[in-house]
Amino acid sequence: MGHKEAMTAMGQRAREAAHLMAKAGMTIKRRFLEQTADRILAQRERIAAANARDLATAEEKGLAKPKVDRLRLTDKVLKEMTDGLREVAALPDPVGRIEGMWTRPNGLRVGRMRIPLGVVGIIYESRPNVTVDAAGLCIKAGNAVILRGGSEAFHSNRCLAEILQETLEETGLPKAAVQVVETTDREAVLELLKLEDLIDVMIPRGGEELIRFVAENARMPVLKHYKGVCHIYVDERVDMDMAERVCLNAKVQRPGVCNAMETLLVHEKAAPMFLPRMAQAFRRHGVELRGCPQTCRLVEGCRPATEEDWAAEYLDLVLAVKIVASMDEAIEHITRYGSSHTEAILTEDLDRAMRFLQEVQSSLVLVNASTRFNDGYQLGLGAEIGISTSRLHAFGPMGVEELTTTKFIAFGTGQLRE
Amino acid sequence: MGHKEAMTAMGQRAREAAHLMAKAGMTIKRRFLEQTADRILAQRERIAAANARDLATAEEKGLAKPKVDRLRLTDKVLKEMTDGLREVAALPDPVGRIEGMWTRPNGLRVGRMRIPLGVVGIIYESRPNVTVDAAGLCIKAGNAVILRGGSEAFHSNRCLAEILQETLEETGLPKAAVQVVETTDREAVLELLKLEDLIDVMIPRGGEELIRFVAENARMPVLKHYKGVCHIYVDERVDMDMAERVCLNAKVQRPGVCNAMETLLVHEKAAPMFLPRMAQAFRRHGVELRGCPQTCRLVEGCRPATEEDWAAEYLDLVLAVKIVASMDEAIEHITRYGSSHTEAILTEDLDRAMRFLQEVQSSLVLVNASTRFNDGYQLGLGAEIGISTSRLHAFGPMGVEELTTTKFIAFGTGQLRE
Repeated sequence: MGHKEAMTAMGQRAREAAHLMAKAGMTIKRRFLEQTADRILAQRERIAAANARDLATAEEKGLAKPKVDRLRLTDKVLKEMTDGLREVAALPDPVGRIEGMWTRPNGLRVGRMRIPLGVVGIIYESRPNVTVDAAGLCIKAGNAVILRGGSEAFHSNRCLAEILQETLEETGLPKAAVQVVETTDREAVLELLKLEDLIDVMIPRGGEELIRFVAENARMPVLKHYKGVCHIYVDERVDMDMAERVCLNAKVQRPGVCNAMETLLVHEKAAPMFLPRMAQAFRRHGVELRGCPQTCRLVEGCRPATEEDWAAEYLDLVLAVKIVASMDEAIEHITRYGSSHTEAILTEDLDRAMRFLQEVQSSLVLVNASTRFNDGYQLGLGAEIGISTSRLHAFGPMGVEELTTTKFIAFGTGQLRE
Repeated sequence: MGHKEAMTAMGQRAREAAHLMAKAGMTIKRRFLEQTADRILAQRERIAAANARDLATAEEKGLAKPKVDRLRLTDKVLKEMTDGLREVAALPDPVGRIEGMWTRPNGLRVGRMRIPLGVVGIIYESRPNVTVDAAGLCIKAGNAVILRGGSEAFHSNRCLAEILQETLEETGLPKAAVQVVETTDREAVLELLKLEDLIDVMIPRGGEELIRFVAENARMPVLKHYKGVCHIYVDERVDMDMAERVCLNAKVQRPGVCNAMETLLVHEKAAPMFLPRMAQAFRRHGVELRGCPQTCRLVEGCRPATEEDWAAEYLDLVLAVKIVASMDEAIEHITRYGSSHTEAILTEDLDRAMRFLQEVQSSLVLVNASTRFNDGYQLGLGAEIGISTSRLHAFGPMGVEELTTTKFIAFGTGQLRE
């Protein structure tokens, strides 16, 4: 069987499973999530054996140590996976919820009902825990899911998918609600991306290259985020102690993630007081600064920033710093170089806070808080399947609700259209 | 300048205009819509002259009369266009609305704020009134729009776009918020469809071929509907007079549109009483019936339906009829042959009504009312830009609100991530 036939058959099985999943009650979905957590812990050795095969291949191939580490299913990772499943189980079930109902002049009662998306495709790299996290969220929202993980995690992903399928069968849900693409051939992915009638949405998770590949080849909608070039703007009227703490947190608490600050913008009236002390704090934490000419005059040893620095997603202990004459200049800079991910203003001025909130069009805009809060858990959505920086359907963290949609419903008494 | 450069430049102008549009207040957008309506009526002669050029070309080329008629900007069409603009002007403005706000354990106040989508692309065929209808809705929602109409309406579309741009300038909005692709070359459209960083969503309106072309080539999200194969299921417990009226309305009130009924499913217990009288009513209105073997036995002169009939979107006075043994069989039939557009159940049984509503996954599911209500105006959304049968972002009629999205906002007092 060629890739095209294999992928189409998989898509059709997923579509049939999605029809059954849409009817599954909240209790059975919850039971599935809890029993999967139990089964993962009960089957530690089976998972470890599969994982060991991937680790051995990775070492043979001479994969870099951080990559090998991300492959490893340690007890800590298993614990996080199963805790995550139990938390998703406990979330409210959005399916079937009626969101608003209104009456038309002819007496027709119209409303919106939340329903699953249908079939979700997820294409991701290396970390095998995504298999369980993503499948759990998709099932909670009443969807079927097709997973295609990285070739390095092939055996781990297959083992976890088997465990998920065993629990699906055990709880009376369709086994094909979770399927894994069992080939690492790119041609198979290309065929998958053509199945617009069988897969409702594709979610790529990984590096920019993978995401571009999916966006360029998928015929179905894609929910994606390319990168996070996040800014903090320190206003002229600001509590400097608070600003120092927030900027430090946004840069150094976990520099390798998409919601870490990459560029600091400072109002020229705050800069002479703020930047030298902020630079000291950064230096203590090993942060390298790259500044505009004005910044370099205020901060000793600051390296001059180039045009590339303003658009850089360092994901490292490096920060671009620019002094601006006004909030408008800060917003213009963000519009030009930002990635619509996360932006914050630190200010005591209400009018500017409200204007910044209104005018900056990023997936999360904060007043007086760290950019690191752009995360499903932190914002109170529960677990997330990713952060969308494109605006259709979801903008920002995508939780269970973003894996659903709404249909219209109407109750009549024989209404006719005139 | 090649197509690629021309389209990219147009996209960049649209992106800049979108930044300004996002800041435009509700009063100025409303004024723009009302003044455009005034200007269209004041410039009737200019519009008629442009329209005459298109009509002359169409007749020279020997275009079929219905197609020529759809091109014609009669006084009635102008009146509908300007009435539509005034109605959109009067709709509530969704931009800036804060939808829900909650407090996290650390005191961070998190909410969602409604914002424009950004740049909307619309690719449509023949009817030039779409230029004004679509631009009006996009501007109301705070977007910039790029329009690409059919080559037959080239001069009419350009003239209407000029009028829109003159009013944009007059009201202080960016002229590039409405742009028209001034070439009918398909290569230009292909270049447009690659501009995923400059255009946030593409909405094709027209025949299935156009929509498939856009879906296959667009790198940005596409909001689309292919076809409407709409069903009514007549349950065993039903008010037969009401059922006759609703079925007749759904089939004959306007057979050429996507929300007209194409297949009638009847419970076998209702069929012997219902189908003969229903068939008579259909015959009086010139509807040709194509039935399953059971239907053919009950209805004299009924032509046997083939497999193709079950999937057909006739858009004409033709109807497929099937007798089913249960509601479950009806739902299975809908799942297999339907297009997720509009489905109705006619019943007096509460339990089956609720189960049909829950289990049928179409963009509008009705109880005891005509399928013809799947329309933005009829459901109370105001004007619509189309009906989406794909589930991402919008499912069903898309009004002003579906041309917006939400971003997250957060108010803090110096919160840090731990």
